[in-house]
Amino acid sequence: MESTPVKLYVDDGSQPSRACMIFCEMNNIPYEKVETRLVKGDNRKEEFLKINPLGQVPAMKHGEFCLREGHAIMKYLHASFDCADHWYPACIKKRAKVDELLDWYHSVLRQGAAPVVFKTVFSKFFGMKFPEDEIKMHHKILKLSLKNIENIFLTDDFLAGPEICIADLTFYNEILQLKYVEYDLSKYPKLLAWCDRMAAIPEVQKITKVILSFIKAFLDKPKAKI
Amino acid sequence: MESTPVKLYVDDGSQPSRACMIFCEMNNIPYEKVETRLVKGDNRKEEFLKINPLGQVPAMKHGEFCLREGHAIMKYLHASFDCADHWYPACIKKRAKVDELLDWYHSVLRQGAAPVVFKTVFSKFFGMKFPEDEIKMHHKILKLSLKNIENIFLTDDFLAGPEICIADLTFYNEILQLKYVEYDLSKYPKLLAWCDRMAAIPEVQKITKVILSFIKAFLDKPKAKI
Repeated sequence: MESTPVKLYVDDGSQPSRACMIFCEMNNIPYEKVETRLVKGDNRKEEFLKINPLGQVPAMKHGEFCLREGHAIMKYLHASFDCADHWYPACIKKRAKVDELLDWYHSVLRQGAAPVVFKTVFSKFFGMKFPEDEIKMHHKILKLSLKNIENIFLTDDFLAGPEICIADLTFYNEILQLKYVEYDLSKYPKLLAWCDRMAAIPEVQKITKVILSFIKAFLDKPKAKI
Repeated sequence: MESTPVKLYVDDGSQPSRACMIFCEMNNIPYEKVETRLVKGDNRKEEFLKINPLGQVPAMKHGEFCLREGHAIMKYLHASFDCADHWYPACIKKRAKVDELLDWYHSVLRQGAAPVVFKTVFSKFFGMKFPEDEIKMHHKILKLSLKNIENIFLTDDFLAGPEICIADLTFYNEILQLKYVEYDLSKYPKLLAWCDRMAAIPEVQKITKVILSFIKAFLDKPKAKI
């Protein structure tokens, strides 16, 4: 199995960046964290654009191989290093159910949760204005997403069964950020119990420490570090 | 290899539905097309919700196994039936590059192209109103997407190399729909050449016939069938 260390170009404020780092930590994959702060424009620097010409994080360099997109990176790492099967099962049907979650994350969950947080934080932080209808639309998608996670997806301890998979990492990091807007999750008891299970994992605690400190600072004083 | 026929719940107006049908046609996978028209509310009927409680197309039933999400369905079919490797390569690095495209499709291309078409068509067809800023935002994402496909992705005949992969199917079906808004693609010669290559495939022609007739009828008379 692979032993070349992986370079991860990440921002602690980026949900899929944190998911990739947690994945490495939980699977003992040697990685070097290359801090790539979006608010500082690190992702627009020539050096980074050589890794990912699209200017997005997370990105990865493994030997001479460059890759972008959080899910693609975790799947690649899972296939290249010695990782437990439950993260992304070899069984065709089980794998398909994880893929289904990952696709839904992109097309539904993230379309609600990410802009609700981003637009609220940026309007408070930079004074940017967003049309009210736009915010309402994102909130509607977010509410539907949370209802689906509660009523349809969470039938076991984790999203795809009794053990954690890569979808749990991206879903959790998206939902965690709702703390920025003090989103009320009390209507979703199964979701809250799952959040507690995720938050109890030492590697999750280690990697989310920075974003939780950003959120605390932001809530204490909306012009604080994001 | 598998021989149980696959039931595909699809709408000809849905981009990923068409991608799944083309995939089956091009790989000789026996499938039954179960027409599930969104405008008629077929996706909200009890029978369909048993297959996919989220009420989205495409969905699939293979024996007793139900699956949703176009990319997940194509990957599952690729793993279950006798399909050529180039659609979703076994090589870890090559597969990662296809996964990267599929993720980007969700988070960028579809976020621009789909609402630009949907909101234009629905405002003309049903008189629905959408804020101008919202439409502008989608157009901005779409323009960036097309520029990236032209300048970064298309370095060969197809998106991931000299042979077609599953990403070509979803990308093409998304871009094809831009005909609804008579989008000018003349600034993107490589993209246009790739569109021509895709449009020349007999199975693509067979499956896109219905949507092309919808588009023609719509452009002739905006209140026509969508």
